[in-house]
Amino acid sequence: MSGNSERGRDQGPITYRDAGVDLRAAESLTGRLADLVNSTRTASSGGAFGSFGGRFHLPAASELVASADGVGTKVLVAARTGVHDTVGEDLVNHCVNDILAEGAEPLFFLDYFACGQLDSDVAYQVIEGVARGCRANRCALLGGETAEMPGVYDPGHYDLAGFIVGRRVFDIPGRSGVRPGDRLVALPSSGLHTNGYSLARMVLFERLGLGPEDPYPQLAGETVGQALLRVHKSYLEPLRVVLEAGAVRALAHITGGGIPGNLSRVLPTDSDAVVHLDSWIPPPLFRVLAAESGLSDSDLYETLNMGIGMIVVVPEDGLDQVLTDTGVGAAGGFACGEITVGDGSVLLLRAE
Amino acid sequence: MSGNSERGRDQGPITYRDAGVDLRAAESLTGRLADLVNSTRTASSGGAFGSFGGRFHLPAASELVASADGVGTKVLVAARTGVHDTVGEDLVNHCVNDILAEGAEPLFFLDYFACGQLDSDVAYQVIEGVARGCRANRCALLGGETAEMPGVYDPGHYDLAGFIVGRRVFDIPGRSGVRPGDRLVALPSSGLHTNGYSLARMVLFERLGLGPEDPYPQLAGETVGQALLRVHKSYLEPLRVVLEAGAVRALAHITGGGIPGNLSRVLPTDSDAVVHLDSWIPPPLFRVLAAESGLSDSDLYETLNMGIGMIVVVPEDGLDQVLTDTGVGAAGGFACGEITVGDGSVLLLRAE
Repeated sequence: MSGNSERGRDQGPITYRDAGVDLRAAESLTGRLADLVNSTRTASSGGAFGSFGGRFHLPAASELVASADGVGTKVLVAARTGVHDTVGEDLVNHCVNDILAEGAEPLFFLDYFACGQLDSDVAYQVIEGVARGCRANRCALLGGETAEMPGVYDPGHYDLAGFIVGRRVFDIPGRSGVRPGDRLVALPSSGLHTNGYSLARMVLFERLGLGPEDPYPQLAGETVGQALLRVHKSYLEPLRVVLEAGAVRALAHITGGGIPGNLSRVLPTDSDAVVHLDSWIPPPLFRVLAAESGLSDSDLYETLNMGIGMIVVVPEDGLDQVLTDTGVGAAGGFACGEITVGDGSVLLLRAE
Repeated sequence: MSGNSERGRDQGPITYRDAGVDLRAAESLTGRLADLVNSTRTASSGGAFGSFGGRFHLPAASELVASADGVGTKVLVAARTGVHDTVGEDLVNHCVNDILAEGAEPLFFLDYFACGQLDSDVAYQVIEGVARGCRANRCALLGGETAEMPGVYDPGHYDLAGFIVGRRVFDIPGRSGVRPGDRLVALPSSGLHTNGYSLARMVLFERLGLGPEDPYPQLAGETVGQALLRVHKSYLEPLRVVLEAGAVRALAHITGGGIPGNLSRVLPTDSDAVVHLDSWIPPPLFRVLAAESGLSDSDLYETLNMGIGMIVVVPEDGLDQVLTDTGVGAAGGFACGEITVGDGSVLLLRAE
């Protein structure tokens, strides 16, 4: 590809760069990514960087769990604030929590980064976040794709998707093991995690007219950008002991659809989940969005996690032990409801 | 989420739909996708649709190979023609070929579909193509993510990424097994596959002023849209016999970067690959792009596959047998060059 030719009015040659794609920038990025990928190596990951596929040695028969996800319009907050090294961590942690809910520990991860115009520094920062998330969750970054797609993404915009594969090591019965009498334990989220950003951006940027550098209303010392970019928590380590103890009936990762949309995914058709909204006070970050959006409780809790990132279903007689002996209480976990006889509904109750 | 409220000037409630996200459309789509996913089930895939992660039972120790990819700006051609059910097949076949180059047969696949405004019919068609590709390659569609991201994607636009995991079953030494004297066998592509679309769109739509319904220049009975949307070939079945025979030193899947960019990925540092450009005539689809773009050979062959979708490196004494006995010749395969002593370069030679 000739890098310095230009498309002339005289119908001269068109190059791929003229068409908006810069293969040299991609090559330079690829070189820098090799170190990031190597930093995530685990004993089982292999294959040369730059090969057609990443290799992973699985030493025994395994039940694999896989999941694909994105970070929603949190990428627009990153683009607007110019802080690009956290959305990758969000992505990994989101994926880790999803497969954790199926009893799996991460093995490897791949990312897809697509943009309108490749800025190799931005791409590097994004993937640096992915690699950091992988290292923190002991997960190999086995490969990825960087795509420059003018016309699909505006210059300065990008999207990010992730794909994780894990191995089932924790015995979580899931929906079939959940029964009336079970208790719900909530674990705090760090912030919006990766959901509700379209709503939050509309409230903060449009309705309130704030910018990313403005102080977040009612949050001391934190800007709008910082509050919105708080990193999605991984619950792998906080839940490891309780999961190893076999004391968990099901896990609901609270993502798109909120508590109702995700808790329903682990409910048998003959049971309800009752969540006591008075059992916690949503952090100020959420209270501002609640007040300024004017949404009803049911709309709010379907859109935002409202301060809860994971709900753990435990047997009734195991509740105290889970909270005291397994570190779940120390990680901020608290009882927030129970399973009752019902029809598969999630009921959000508030004492009058 | 209240579906019929609207954001008023009086600072009334904002709903998530007002913010451009329609959770109900997403739910309706999810219901329709369950059948598609079920149509791809294999003996090893499991887990309920709608769970946090898809499950896959691997019965023995395995060398896994994973890859992530997209289809580039071919998605813009799909959006412009309104034909959405082929890009998913492109995506699966692209991924299948990538892991095939590492000796792997597909096990399972996950997709990421992101759009500006969820049109559940479009999303369904796209994922229908993914499912068709999965069935054809005997690969379970284990999960996926559908994201509505107003502000990242324009209405009517979408992006599509795929993730594949396979198991190494074919003994392909790869780079370390390639040596001077080896021969190159080319397998025809069906068209552009998934690369060079920014260039092709610029030539056809902008320079030539054609629309998707116009006849493609020099192609009888095929429109621009049809020619550009020709499905990326999967080489899994055409190459199965020769791979099972252990007669392959390396495979180069010809994607972004063309023959030079991909053949170099399987070259040892002390060898060159010599490709004889006279050994085939690029199909008319490419000849039009070559003539109208005015690109040099070296630019052209780095941007487009020029009619070759996969290059197979075989030992010199195995060439005749590969072409005659393994079905590779019947699949259109032909000798296109050889490996020589060198420095890791790909040389495109044309007899004067």
